[in-house]
Amino acid sequence: MVVATQSLDQLCINSIRFLAIDAVEKAKSGHPGLPMGAAPMAFVLWDKIMRFNPKNPQWFNRDRFVLSAGHGCMLQYALLHLSGYDSVTIDDIKSFRQWGSRTPGHPENFETPGVEVTTGPLGQGICNGVGLAMAEAHLAGRLNKPDATLVDHYTYVILGDGCNMEGVSGEACSLAGHLGLGKLIALYDDNHISIDGSTDISFTEDVSKRFEAYGWHVQHVENGNTDLDAIQKAIEAAKAVTDRPSMIKVTTTIGYGSPNKSDSAGIHGAALGDEEIKLTRENLGWEHEPFVIPDDVLSHFRKAVDRGASAEAEWNETLATYRTQYPEEAALFDRMQKGELPANWEAALPTYTSADKTLATRKHSEITINALAGVIPEMLGGSADLTHSNLTEIKGEGNFQKGTYGNRNLRFGVREHGMGAICNGIVLHNSGLIPYCATFLVFADYMRAAIRLSALSEAGVIYVMTHDSIGLGEDGPTHQPVETIASLRVIPNLIVMRPAEGTETSGAYQVAIANRKRPTLIALSRQGLPDYDNSSIEGVTKGAYVLSDSDGTPDLILIGTGSEVQLCTKAADQLRGEGKKVRVVSMPSWELYDEQDDAYKESVLPKAVKKRLSVEAGCDFGWSRYVGSEGASIGVDGFGASAPGGLVMEKYGFTVENVVAKAKEVLG
Amino acid sequence: MVVATQSLDQLCINSIRFLAIDAVEKAKSGHPGLPMGAAPMAFVLWDKIMRFNPKNPQWFNRDRFVLSAGHGCMLQYALLHLSGYDSVTIDDIKSFRQWGSRTPGHPENFETPGVEVTTGPLGQGICNGVGLAMAEAHLAGRLNKPDATLVDHYTYVILGDGCNMEGVSGEACSLAGHLGLGKLIALYDDNHISIDGSTDISFTEDVSKRFEAYGWHVQHVENGNTDLDAIQKAIEAAKAVTDRPSMIKVTTTIGYGSPNKSDSAGIHGAALGDEEIKLTRENLGWEHEPFVIPDDVLSHFRKAVDRGASAEAEWNETLATYRTQYPEEAALFDRMQKGELPANWEAALPTYTSADKTLATRKHSEITINALAGVIPEMLGGSADLTHSNLTEIKGEGNFQKGTYGNRNLRFGVREHGMGAICNGIVLHNSGLIPYCATFLVFADYMRAAIRLSALSEAGVIYVMTHDSIGLGEDGPTHQPVETIASLRVIPNLIVMRPAEGTETSGAYQVAIANRKRPTLIALSRQGLPDYDNSSIEGVTKGAYVLSDSDGTPDLILIGTGSEVQLCTKAADQLRGEGKKVRVVSMPSWELYDEQDDAYKESVLPKAVKKRLSVEAGCDFGWSRYVGSEGASIGVDGFGASAPGGLVMEKYGFTVENVVAKAKEVLG
Repeated sequence: MVVATQSLDQLCINSIRFLAIDAVEKAKSGHPGLPMGAAPMAFVLWDKIMRFNPKNPQWFNRDRFVLSAGHGCMLQYALLHLSGYDSVTIDDIKSFRQWGSRTPGHPENFETPGVEVTTGPLGQGICNGVGLAMAEAHLAGRLNKPDATLVDHYTYVILGDGCNMEGVSGEACSLAGHLGLGKLIALYDDNHISIDGSTDISFTEDVSKRFEAYGWHVQHVENGNTDLDAIQKAIEAAKAVTDRPSMIKVTTTIGYGSPNKSDSAGIHGAALGDEEIKLTRENLGWEHEPFVIPDDVLSHFRKAVDRGASAEAEWNETLATYRTQYPEEAALFDRMQKGELPANWEAALPTYTSADKTLATRKHSEITINALAGVIPEMLGGSADLTHSNLTEIKGEGNFQKGTYGNRNLRFGVREHGMGAICNGIVLHNSGLIPYCATFLVFADYMRAAIRLSALSEAGVIYVMTHDSIGLGEDGPTHQPVETIASLRVIPNLIVMRPAEGTETSGAYQVAIANRKRPTLIALSRQGLPDYDNSSIEGVTKGAYVLSDSDGTPDLILIGTGSEVQLCTKAADQLRGEGKKVRVVSMPSWELYDEQDDAYKESVLPKAVKKRLSVEAGCDFGWSRYVGSEGASIGVDGFGASAPGGLVMEKYGFTVENVVAKAKEVLG
Repeated sequence: MVVATQSLDQLCINSIRFLAIDAVEKAKSGHPGLPMGAAPMAFVLWDKIMRFNPKNPQWFNRDRFVLSAGHGCMLQYALLHLSGYDSVTIDDIKSFRQWGSRTPGHPENFETPGVEVTTGPLGQGICNGVGLAMAEAHLAGRLNKPDATLVDHYTYVILGDGCNMEGVSGEACSLAGHLGLGKLIALYDDNHISIDGSTDISFTEDVSKRFEAYGWHVQHVENGNTDLDAIQKAIEAAKAVTDRPSMIKVTTTIGYGSPNKSDSAGIHGAALGDEEIKLTRENLGWEHEPFVIPDDVLSHFRKAVDRGASAEAEWNETLATYRTQYPEEAALFDRMQKGELPANWEAALPTYTSADKTLATRKHSEITINALAGVIPEMLGGSADLTHSNLTEIKGEGNFQKGTYGNRNLRFGVREHGMGAICNGIVLHNSGLIPYCATFLVFADYMRAAIRLSALSEAGVIYVMTHDSIGLGEDGPTHQPVETIASLRVIPNLIVMRPAEGTETSGAYQVAIANRKRPTLIALSRQGLPDYDNSSIEGVTKGAYVLSDSDGTPDLILIGTGSEVQLCTKAADQLRGEGKKVRVVSMPSWELYDEQDDAYKESVLPKAVKKRLSVEAGCDFGWSRYVGSEGASIGVDGFGASAPGGLVMEKYGFTVENVVAKAKEVLG
C-alpha cells in the first residue's frame, strides 16, 4: 500500500494503533488486534462526539465510555493518554501490563482514573453500560426540570463478537430495549474474528436482527476501517433516536494495517513481532519510533482538554442556577456527589425484642428496605422476577420504566447475571446511587461473575438473597443452597452476612449501606425466626458477638448463623439446665469478625475455650478455622431434598436434640 | 362456562390439569399454572407425536422430552403416570414434594426414570435439549449408514418466559441455530406471565424474531389453549424442517380453566385453594374426585405402552440387522450402551520422569486428551473459544458442524454457561458419550450453575480449566483465579483436581474418565512445571500421596497442589540440607483424599505430625482442616495483579525462600 499524505484524522487513528502495537510488543503480551481495528470508531467517538474533561475524570455530566471488549484496553489507554488524562502518561503506556502500573492487562476503574468500569470478562461491560444509562435516566427523571437539565449525558460502549456471544449481554440488552434507554449507544466491532478463528465456526446468528428483536435502533457501518464520516453520521443518528437504545454494527478488520496478520485470530492476543511491525509501519505509512506521537497529532487530541474544561464550566453554570432554583434537589444532588449518606440514617433501622412477632428475615429485610428507602433517597433496586418472594419492593413507589425513570423499583426480569452487572454499572456511575438486587441465594451461582466484579471493582452493590438454606423446603435441591454461602465467603472484598433475626437484619443493612466500596451479600431465611433481647446492631457490625452466656469461663461455645442461632440458644438452655456453662455466639459475618482486633476476637471466642460447635445449615467447609481441632460442626453434607422445610431441617440434623447431642460429644 | 360433552382429547388434557391442581393442593406447595396452560401442547406431544416406551424409559432411540420450565413438573409427572411409566404411580403423585418421593419439587433425572435431565434453574433445560440433540446428531453422524438408520430421534423442549429471559438459553440457542440441529423442537409456552406479573413489566422483546436471528425455523400457534390441531400441525411442520431447529411459540393462558386466577401470577406458584378448585372443576366440567382418572382417559393414554413396545421392537430389528451389517460399529454402540469403557484404556495414559521436558499441565492435558481420544472413541469436546489456550483440540479430527456432526471437536463460541449445560445434556443422553469442555479457570464463575447441575444430576462432564492461578500473569485480576478452586471444592459430588505435572495430569484424566456419575474439574497451569520420578497415577487417584520423604517420622509436612508442588520439593531439599526431616505431600484432590480409609490417610498425613504447611496459589480458605492448629498455609490474600506471571508469583510469596521461611516459623 502506498500511503499518500495522510489526513490529520488518519494520523490520529494510526497513533492509537501504534501505541497499542508498540506497548504490546514491549510487554510481549497483550491484544493489539482490537485497538488496530476499532481505532477509527474510537477516534470519532472521542474526538468528535463525546463530552468529557480529561483534567477532571469525575466530572459528573461526562459521557461514559465502556470498552466491553476489555482485552483491547490499549485502545482505551491510548485514548486517555492522547486526550490528556494525567492518569495515563507515555511512561504508563511503556509499562503496560507491568507490576504496579496504571495500565493493567484489562481496564480497572480502581487503578486508572478515566476508566469507568472494570472489563475483560466478556459481556460484562455492555451490561455495566446498561447500568450507567439506567443511572443517568434515573437521576434525570428525579432531578431534571422543565427549565433545568442537570443530568444529560450519553453512555457509549464498544463491544465485540465475544461480548455478543455471552448470554449476560443478551439479558441486559433485552432489558435495555424494554426500558427504551435512548441515551445508550453501543458500537459493535464486527470483525468476524474471535480467538478460535473466524466467527463462522460458532457464531453465525444475525446480531443486528437480534438487537432489533430487543427493541433497539440498529444501524450498520459497512466500512468501519476508513469511512469516518459514516461512523460519525451513524452515531449522530443514534443520538437522535431518543426512545430506544442504539446499536451500530461497525464492520472492521481486526489488526487493520498488518499485512500478514490482519483479519486473523493470530493478531487478537499476541504481539506482532519485529518484522510484522516493520511491515505494518510501512503499510500504514507510520514513520515514527515506538511511543513517539507527532506534535500535530498530540495537539489535536489535546484540544479535548479545553473542550472538556468548557463543557464542564458550562455545566457548572447550569448547576449553579439549579442550586438557586431547586435548592432541595440540589442539596440531595450535592450530598450524593460527595458520597455522603444522609445524617442520622441509621436511626431508621428497626430493632426488635423477644416479644416481637416471629418473622422470616426476608420479611425483616423488606421492613428495613422500606424504612431505609424513606430516609435514603439514593436507594433503588429490585429483584430478578422474585419481588414477592424476595420481598424487595419499596412500597408506594412506582416502577422504573420507560417514562417513569425517576421511580426506584427496578424490574429486572429473570436475568440474575445481567442484574448484577447492571448494578455494578449503577454504582460505578459514581453519583451516589445505592442499588440493591435480589434473587434466591442458590442463584448467586448464575450471577457469580458479576458479584466477583462488584468485589474487584469496589462497587458497593447490595445483594439481597433469600431462601438461604434447605429450610426453604419443597422446591428441593435445585433451589436449596448448601454450598453457596461457603462459596461466597471466599470472594475477596465481599461481605457475606447471614442475620439470625430482626435486629441482626438491621445490622446487616447498616453494614451494607455504609460500605460503598465493598459489596455486601445478605442471606435471608424463607421461614420465620424468633427475635432476641440481646441481639445488637453493633454486634453484627463486628461480625460475631456473644448472644448469651453462662457465668464464668464457658465449657462450650455454640456458634450459629442465621436460622440456626435459634437451635444454639435452645440447646444452650437445655445444656445449662444440665449444669454446663455454655456461651452462644451469633456470627453473621466471618469477614467482619476476621477484621476485628485480637482483643475483641478473644472476648468472643477465647483461645482457652477449645470445645466449640458450629451450627449452620450449609456445608461446613471452612468452619474448622473457628471451631479448631477439638471442636465440631453441624452442617449439610451433600445436596438437599424436596419436602416441607421443617422436615428437611429435621432430617438433616438441624434440631435442638441433635445440637445437644453433638455438643455433648464435643464436651466429651 | 357450560361444558358440553367433552371429547376424549379434552378429557385427557383436563386429567393432566387436575392431577397438577390436586397434587399441588395436597402438598400445599407447587406450581399449577404452567401444567394447566401447557397441558394441551404436552398432550399433543406425548399422545400424537413422541416415540417412547413407558416400560423401558431407557430405550435408546426414544424421543427426548425436556421440561425446561421445571417448576411445572407436575405436568411431567402427570404425563409419566398417565402414559404408563412405573416410576410415577398415583401414590407418587399424591406424595408430590414429600420426603422420599419420586415426585420432587423440580424434575430430577436421578430420582425419576423417564425424566431425562434435572431442571428448575431456568434456562438450563433448553440448553440440555441442545446437548441431547447434539448427542443424537453426533451418534447419527458416526453410526448411521445409507442403508441403516440406527440413531433417529427428536428432542422436544417446553420452555417458558423465564427460560427465554435467561442469558444461558440464548447462548445455547444461538449455537443450536448455527449448528442447524434440525431434530430439536422447542415449544415456547407464551403465557405472558412470570412471577412478578405480566411480562409487560420487563420482557417485551420479540422472542420469535430473536430465534429467527439465531437461524431457527419459527412458527406461532395463536390459540394454544384449545387448538390442538394447530399445535399438531406446527410440530409436524417443525419435523419437516430438517436443516434448522424449530421454535413454536404457543400462546396459552397460565392456569387455564381457573375462573379467578388464570392469566395471573397468582396461579404460577401456589395452590389454588378449595374454593377456586371447586370453581375450576365446574368451569372445566371435571366431575372426578381428586386423583381419580376416568377409565377411558387412562386406557387412551396407556395405549402409549403398546405403541412404545412396538416402536422399540421395530428398532430392535433395525439394531439386529445393523449388528450383522456393521459389526464393528455395532460393537462400539453396544459397549457404549452398556456404559462400559474400552478394555485397557488406561494403558494410553502417558507417564513421565524428571528427565522429561518441562511442560505446562495444560500441555500435558492436550497430550492426554489426544492419547485418550485415540482409544476412547466416545470422547468429544472443546472449548469456549479458547481452543489454543486451553489446548483441547483432538488433532486430526474435524469439527462438529452442520453436515459433519460425526466429528468430535466441539466449537462452543464464547458461551461458557451454555457449554456446561449442553455438556450436561450430552452426558444425560445416556448413550455413553464422554464430553469435556474448557475455559479459563476463573470463568468457572460464568458456568457455575451448570457445574452445580452436573454434580447434582450425576453427569460425568469433564471440565478442563486452564490458567489456574495468578501465575497466568499479565491478564491481571479479572483473569486470575484466587478464590475459584476453593469455591469449587465446596460443590458436593464434584471432583476438583489440580495436578502438579505430567503423570499427575494423566491421573486426573484417569479419575475423570472413570467417574461417569460425577463431574471432574481439572485445574491446569499456563506455565511450565517439572516432572517427578515419584509421582504416580495411583497416588493421584487417592487424592493425596507422599511425593518425597526423609527417613523416620517427619518434623514437618509440606502439602502442595499443582504448580506449588515444585516449591515444596525445592524447599524440602533445602530444609533437609539443614537437617530437618521433611515430607512432601502432593494433594491434587481434597475430595478423593477425604474418601480414603483412615489407614491410608494416616499413612500420608500422620496425626502425630502437627507441623504442616500448605502451599497453594489460591485463597487458603479451608486448608485449616489439613494443616491443623499448629500448621500454616501460604495462599493468596485478595485479588491478583497484572504483571509477568513469575513476578506476580514472587510478589505474592510463592518462592522457595518464602516457603522455607514459613516452614521454619511453623517448626518454631
